[in-house]
Amino acid sequence: MSSASSSTGASTVIDNIATLVTNDPSLGDGSPLGLVRDAAVVIEGDRVVWTGESRKAPATDNRVDAGGRAVIPGFVDSHSHLVFAGDRTEEFNARMSGRAYSAGGIRTTVAATRAAGDAELEANLTRHLAEALRQGTTTFETKSGYGLTVADESRALRIAARHTDEVTYLGAHIVSPDYAGDPAAYVDLVTGEMLDACAPHARWIDVFCEKGAFDGDQARAILTAGKARGLHPRVHANQLSHGPGVQLAVELDAASADHCTHLTDADVDALANSSTVATLLPGAEFSTRAQWPDARRLLDAGVTVALSTDCNPGSSYTSSVPFCVALAVRDMGMTPDEALWSATAGGAAALRRTDVGRLAPGARADLAVLDAPSHVHLAYRPGVPLVTQVWRRGVREV
Amino acid sequence: MSSASSSTGASTVIDNIATLVTNDPSLGDGSPLGLVRDAAVVIEGDRVVWTGESRKAPATDNRVDAGGRAVIPGFVDSHSHLVFAGDRTEEFNARMSGRAYSAGGIRTTVAATRAAGDAELEANLTRHLAEALRQGTTTFETKSGYGLTVADESRALRIAARHTDEVTYLGAHIVSPDYAGDPAAYVDLVTGEMLDACAPHARWIDVFCEKGAFDGDQARAILTAGKARGLHPRVHANQLSHGPGVQLAVELDAASADHCTHLTDADVDALANSSTVATLLPGAEFSTRAQWPDARRLLDAGVTVALSTDCNPGSSYTSSVPFCVALAVRDMGMTPDEALWSATAGGAAALRRTDVGRLAPGARADLAVLDAPSHVHLAYRPGVPLVTQVWRRGVREV
Ligand SMILES: [Zn+2]
Ligand SMILES: [Zn+2]
Repeated sequence: MSSASSSTGASTVIDNIATLVTNDPSLGDGSPLGLVRDAAVVIEGDRVVWTGESRKAPATDNRVDAGGRAVIPGFVDSHSHLVFAGDRTEEFNARMSGRAYSAGGIRTTVAATRAAGDAELEANLTRHLAEALRQGTTTFETKSGYGLTVADESRALRIAARHTDEVTYLGAHIVSPDYAGDPAAYVDLVTGEMLDACAPHARWIDVFCEKGAFDGDQARAILTAGKARGLHPRVHANQLSHGPGVQLAVELDAASADHCTHLTDADVDALANSSTVATLLPGAEFSTRAQWPDARRLLDAGVTVALSTDCNPGSSYTSSVPFCVALAVRDMGMTPDEALWSATAGGAAALRRTDVGRLAPGARADLAVLDAPSHVHLAYRPGVPLVTQVWRRGVREV
Repeated sequence: MSSASSSTGASTVIDNIATLVTNDPSLGDGSPLGLVRDAAVVIEGDRVVWTGESRKAPATDNRVDAGGRAVIPGFVDSHSHLVFAGDRTEEFNARMSGRAYSAGGIRTTVAATRAAGDAELEANLTRHLAEALRQGTTTFETKSGYGLTVADESRALRIAARHTDEVTYLGAHIVSPDYAGDPAAYVDLVTGEMLDACAPHARWIDVFCEKGAFDGDQARAILTAGKARGLHPRVHANQLSHGPGVQLAVELDAASADHCTHLTDADVDALANSSTVATLLPGAEFSTRAQWPDARRLLDAGVTVALSTDCNPGSSYTSSVPFCVALAVRDMGMTPDEALWSATAGGAAALRRTDVGRLAPGARADLAVLDAPSHVHLAYRPGVPLVTQVWRRGVREV
């Protein structure tokens, strides 16, 4: 994932930053956020080359005045499902209005996605990515999982790979409706011909380990087959009920166990003694009126926690990391500092990246300027679009 | 509040609207939202002059293509506290982080507001109003209440009146710290010299009727004095506990009883048999982790419900009506349709306005274009800034 820091090109300082979040404890105030007050960031090419107090900043070719605003690392959204077509507004409306509705759930989106042309899928993806970028997301992961055929899954991954390095093969989202009577045959497909077609286009393999989707043994077979093809595992685990997902994620050294809503003490211990990140996705609990994951319990046990959107048209159709931060603070026991860390450095850890999610020399120059003096305002001012500038790889894009 | 419809000037049609919310049941599908599909709105001067299906729209001078998006009436935010100075980030951060903090609460903002110059107060107000406008709010009410002296309260109202017609005198926000030992003397001031100074600049009078603020008898005295000076009452009622506020609001024919979190059956009955609107402010419950008001109970009883932000730097520092809509659907039992109605027509009812909160001929041309095909997306896509265009009085401002 790393690329050599560009040493050519003009240098730019962004200064007059009231609060800079570096996520480097060796900088600034020594906290995990590595806060620097009255700060500046110097960018050269696509990299940060200097971070510190404004008055100490080196001379540069260009200067941008942050106007006393806060600067944070760009959000790292490590869990989304954005290669899809169709709309599930009516299903959402019926659920929230208490009306009966014969919802097809994921199958509805599978049918619409299969029916869509490549151009439509890519346009939908890029529209959602632009929307996320405007809200400060500079790194995102996205998954297949609405194709469920060899051709449709590999197509989804090829389209995704044009827009991000963090592409996840999720042929095991649900058992394909085409294999409703023979799930074992579908697992064979996912670990066989479909894997062959998909592995070249993905970095990650994921499975929805849940009652009604894939059990622990199926999930282990799928992830193990993916590992053998060089894909690294991540797991949809323990979202709707207790289950084997988290323990399996730890067993296979998955980068992340995602959702983690229903956890036993043994699950929490396993995560705490692993390098598997717990990725919490409060948009899903918000939009399905489900129980909140207990971030406090995980943090107190020493688990590394990430916050992401789970953006998808069924259960969590938000692309807003700031919204997830506000929910995590209100309902999941995270402090504003912890939530900000989890949405940036935490997301990077869930993708095993060290080049993003922080603003220290050598890191990618991915950052967001907030229309606020402090990152705390993301929770203090819920729902308000506070992101006013976004820089990615050293270029201002918003 | 009404002004004659302008019959001069060019006409403009906004067409190719996938879903138009008119809030006029006689238009469109007959529902309270008066939905029209494939719709157009014709604007002349500051007014709507025609609403209906695109294919039937009359010829106009100009055309704006809504691109298959949804159009809704501009939000009517009938409850905010935006004449203030200072910041309570640290108080919020401590509360959400479980840290002790000697919070001064409203008094902190009173001290900062008194110390601020007029220009600073006005700049702060206009900054927040611009932020609200970008999120689709085209009508807003705002209050004094952080001055608590004759000079500071009247100053706040004069500043507010430069920016909105909906100005509320809230000298009775809390008992002024200067009168801590003699609340009766403060009530005398609020109903005497302070009222004399404030009445010319306000339309409304409000009181915080709550333990620790003003009891039922004090509140009645304050509101009755205001009525005698031509101010119309509204009441901060039943926010933190059961109390006399709602019944008092109905007794005095207040336009609105605001908060309504703790209600007896008698309170609900009183509201249902009145023309007093129940204005719910979920931003406050969100930011203080308090119990949600039960909108479903009120709606089922036949009460008119409005949704507003309560935007203020202490208990609800959001200016986002879309965020309040999403919370109302998730946590207060409102359907997406009901929440949209309450944030537009409901807000207008809470201000006893008929010229805003709807998009029918004769109404003010105040509207928002959403980057979505339906108003349901405000709840379906929580946190996402969906408002892409805002027109106010027939002029595109965002
Ligand atoms: Zn997911
Ligand atoms: Zn209030």
